[in-house]
Amino acid sequence: MVVSLRLPSLSSLFSPSISRRYPSVLRRRHHLRPPPSSASFSAQSTAPATDVVDSRKSNQKVQDGGVTPRSQDFNAWYLDVIANAELADYGPVRGTMVIRPYGYAIWEAIQDYLNVKFKETGHSNMYFPQLIPYSFIEKEASHVEGFSPELALVTIGGGKELEEKLVVRPTSETIVNHMFTQWIHSYRDLPLMVNQWANVTRWEMRTKPFVRTLEFLWQEGHTAHATPEEAEKEAIQMIDVYTKFAYEEAAIPVIAGRKSKVETFAGAVRTYTIEAMMGDRKALQAGTSHNLGQNFSRAFGTLFTDESGQRQHVWQTSWAVSTRFVGGIIMTHGDDTGLMLPPKIAPIQVVIVPIWKKEDDKAGVLNAASSVKDALHTAGIKVKLDDTDQRTPGWKFNFWEMKGVPLRIEIGPRDVSSQSVVVCRRDVPGKQGKVFGISMEPSILEAYIKDKLDEIQSSLLGQATSFRDGNIVDVSSYDELKVAISQGKWARGPWSASDKDELKVKEETGATIRCFPFDQPHGIKTCLMTSNPAEEVAIFAKSY
Amino acid sequence: MVVSLRLPSLSSLFSPSISRRYPSVLRRRHHLRPPPSSASFSAQSTAPATDVVDSRKSNQKVQDGGVTPRSQDFNAWYLDVIANAELADYGPVRGTMVIRPYGYAIWEAIQDYLNVKFKETGHSNMYFPQLIPYSFIEKEASHVEGFSPELALVTIGGGKELEEKLVVRPTSETIVNHMFTQWIHSYRDLPLMVNQWANVTRWEMRTKPFVRTLEFLWQEGHTAHATPEEAEKEAIQMIDVYTKFAYEEAAIPVIAGRKSKVETFAGAVRTYTIEAMMGDRKALQAGTSHNLGQNFSRAFGTLFTDESGQRQHVWQTSWAVSTRFVGGIIMTHGDDTGLMLPPKIAPIQVVIVPIWKKEDDKAGVLNAASSVKDALHTAGIKVKLDDTDQRTPGWKFNFWEMKGVPLRIEIGPRDVSSQSVVVCRRDVPGKQGKVFGISMEPSILEAYIKDKLDEIQSSLLGQATSFRDGNIVDVSSYDELKVAISQGKWARGPWSASDKDELKVKEETGATIRCFPFDQPHGIKTCLMTSNPAEEVAIFAKSY
Repeated sequence: MVVSLRLPSLSSLFSPSISRRYPSVLRRRHHLRPPPSSASFSAQSTAPATDVVDSRKSNQKVQDGGVTPRSQDFNAWYLDVIANAELADYGPVRGTMVIRPYGYAIWEAIQDYLNVKFKETGHSNMYFPQLIPYSFIEKEASHVEGFSPELALVTIGGGKELEEKLVVRPTSETIVNHMFTQWIHSYRDLPLMVNQWANVTRWEMRTKPFVRTLEFLWQEGHTAHATPEEAEKEAIQMIDVYTKFAYEEAAIPVIAGRKSKVETFAGAVRTYTIEAMMGDRKALQAGTSHNLGQNFSRAFGTLFTDESGQRQHVWQTSWAVSTRFVGGIIMTHGDDTGLMLPPKIAPIQVVIVPIWKKEDDKAGVLNAASSVKDALHTAGIKVKLDDTDQRTPGWKFNFWEMKGVPLRIEIGPRDVSSQSVVVCRRDVPGKQGKVFGISMEPSILEAYIKDKLDEIQSSLLGQATSFRDGNIVDVSSYDELKVAISQGKWARGPWSASDKDELKVKEETGATIRCFPFDQPHGIKTCLMTSNPAEEVAIFAKSY
Repeated sequence: MVVSLRLPSLSSLFSPSISRRYPSVLRRRHHLRPPPSSASFSAQSTAPATDVVDSRKSNQKVQDGGVTPRSQDFNAWYLDVIANAELADYGPVRGTMVIRPYGYAIWEAIQDYLNVKFKETGHSNMYFPQLIPYSFIEKEASHVEGFSPELALVTIGGGKELEEKLVVRPTSETIVNHMFTQWIHSYRDLPLMVNQWANVTRWEMRTKPFVRTLEFLWQEGHTAHATPEEAEKEAIQMIDVYTKFAYEEAAIPVIAGRKSKVETFAGAVRTYTIEAMMGDRKALQAGTSHNLGQNFSRAFGTLFTDESGQRQHVWQTSWAVSTRFVGGIIMTHGDDTGLMLPPKIAPIQVVIVPIWKKEDDKAGVLNAASSVKDALHTAGIKVKLDDTDQRTPGWKFNFWEMKGVPLRIEIGPRDVSSQSVVVCRRDVPGKQGKVFGISMEPSILEAYIKDKLDEIQSSLLGQATSFRDGNIVDVSSYDELKVAISQGKWARGPWSASDKDELKVKEETGATIRCFPFDQPHGIKTCLMTSNPAEEVAIFAKSY
């Protein structure tokens, strides 16, 4: 299939927003993009009364293949990249998203890595039904408070009104506990450690592709333990797995830490999080791991007989990473040329573009390109040969740069003569990133390419880390915090103030506590708000 | 986690049945199991007015770890195996199923194989939203007729009544076409070949775990082509992929063929199917591939500009295999001892049971067992060492036989002395399947085990094929057909009669045309019903 650079105006269908469980107060403050001109979309993004949209109309707006500059309008840039790199499209129901093959391939890379890690750490995959009796949601007090405004309810099944409304799973702690009560009897049944890859539905009012959609894909781990210590250890272990993934695979230097009480998951005792700084310096909560304590086991009566014969409630965790992570990758590494993918999660690591003008040269160039492709493929490199003659090399360069492919190999007639290729780095623009005369000899080329991919991988992490560190300000007073936040930065400062003070910061600055980072400075600290002693620093930022 | 052989009485929660799209007339004729004694379940299986069940009550019924003999009550046997082998459990909502880790691992084996084949044949994975506007379903006439009685409808979202009801995806042809209209413009965009792994929801009134549940997991492939020939080729290609999987991986000798017009998928021009004979000789439709022609593209206006500049509707296919296949594996190979898994899809291919009586022997036996495990694991064999001391070896033998693990290795103190092991085949009961004195030397043992696994794989296919062939009767008249069906067999005979005659057979015998097999006998044929010339033989059988 030849892909045309046709741009549905995604930007007008999605707008940034905040849910109750990704708290922030940006709702009224930030309309990152001016209201779209087309009346048929504005109805959706500003007043989502109609849930079904005729998205075909949007195709009338065809752009030229470029993207809005990132510096000019970050949100528009983001949506343009998603459209032009063919990552996703909007579904017919407001706020839903179709994940297109290229976007889905990134999700598959995330799945492939995490799935192995989950199994290595003793978890088994399984599957829980997505329809949950409404009464289940009501059993855990703070859980129902957090989720009830966002539920999709099935009320009719097989043509009949149902006696009890069914919730389309927004998360599975309730049904998991219902089942755990049947499988857990004694300490010998513990720990019980499972995971599922599934879709979840949350009736978000304001959505943004990947970051917040009505339906999204995720994995949700659920575990039950005999002691609070084990549950805590598990919750920490899983946030560590996520952290390692973020750094080593996605090249995102997340900050891992503990959520404040205000920001803790509805139903959890403690929530751990990884927070990523996006290109606009807003924070993205990229993964969470919850120590649920006995909240759900008490609500559902999930009991076990311990070694001394006593009946006890189990101690639980849950943890999740979702398709939102794809949004984090886009917003961490992308630039004005489009997407930029870390080699380890790129569906295509190397694209080969053969170049010929004279028909006489074509066969030789294509043969050489094909040999290079086979050699790299054999070496385990994800390589694509773009040999269509329906597009010019220049078009192809732009297209694959938009798609964020880390390396491009160009092969023309002169390269065939000299048995060499030209290698271009996606992350180093222009001539600087272009190296001529790399030998086609398989072992030399393979070694060179692998080396470059490693270099790009660490360069992306390095750049993102510099960017992050250059945008975190250490503050010791509320005034300093306000200045930092007003400059769009993250503020890090000692904090031991009340929930009320935390909400005041949110109300007055738009920033929330993203986390109390695990990595804490030494020394005596004084709360930036109250001047009381503070044991920890917190990081404040505006967020998605 | 130590698993206890506790048996929730699944058999009373599910009952065999038929949907409109898996047609048959068994509904009133076959209650394979007498009504359950517990009133709380009978309400569910016979009059599903209440959609939410308190399944915990079922745990009161704890059995002894054995299963109902297959010959005595096939349906009860099936449900017992599912419970005892820990494959699945019932969800809280009537007709839903929790797929437990061991059952899910079988599904993962199916996924792993098919996912590779789909990609090899040029398909990309992606994801379509599960919420579909109700109006979409109505666009294709026979589609709405087939599916509307079974829809789950979301009518409330975010606390508000929705303007348009949303369908929880029963299948995705409609939303796929809605999106295809936006992606397909010219012949250069074709073929468009995608697949998704997803959950689907169909409000079935009578359910049976794996075979027919309210929600199930599947893959659904969707393709669009420029010509009817290409679509037909694709539909055939995919039923061939399924057939190969069934034979080579699942050891199920399915019969592949074309559905009759009456049995064709709601919206398709032609449906291809693989039909498997279960242990009770009923047919299970184990996978289908549909040539959709232009039915959906006309309904949705999925057009492309062909090479001559004409606008044309695309030609489409869709094809699916679901978690139902797991049910097919159970009912093909299982016996009175429990599940029996073909090695190629077994989550555990070899279980090692160490045996010791004296505490002095324990360390030596466990060391040897552990070395054997490591050697086999390194050789790429899926091996588990069951070294818990909370269960006796005898208990473990039964447990892993119930789980259908193809090979068991026993290691006791005498084996340690002689540096050998005992190997037992799951598929050959008693002493006959037990071989003593196989060397522990890694290369010898590996070769032996791999050889045995291959032997079991082909033996299972051979047995199932003999069983199948011994239960298909060639018939040349309706009377012969009736006799064959009344004996519980499949009838194969020439057929060129009308739809009405086909429905008469169904009404009078309970059998339907499972398919016109691809593999047809030579020679002139006379329709068994009308004595008119017939070009093909059809296979009639009762089915799930």
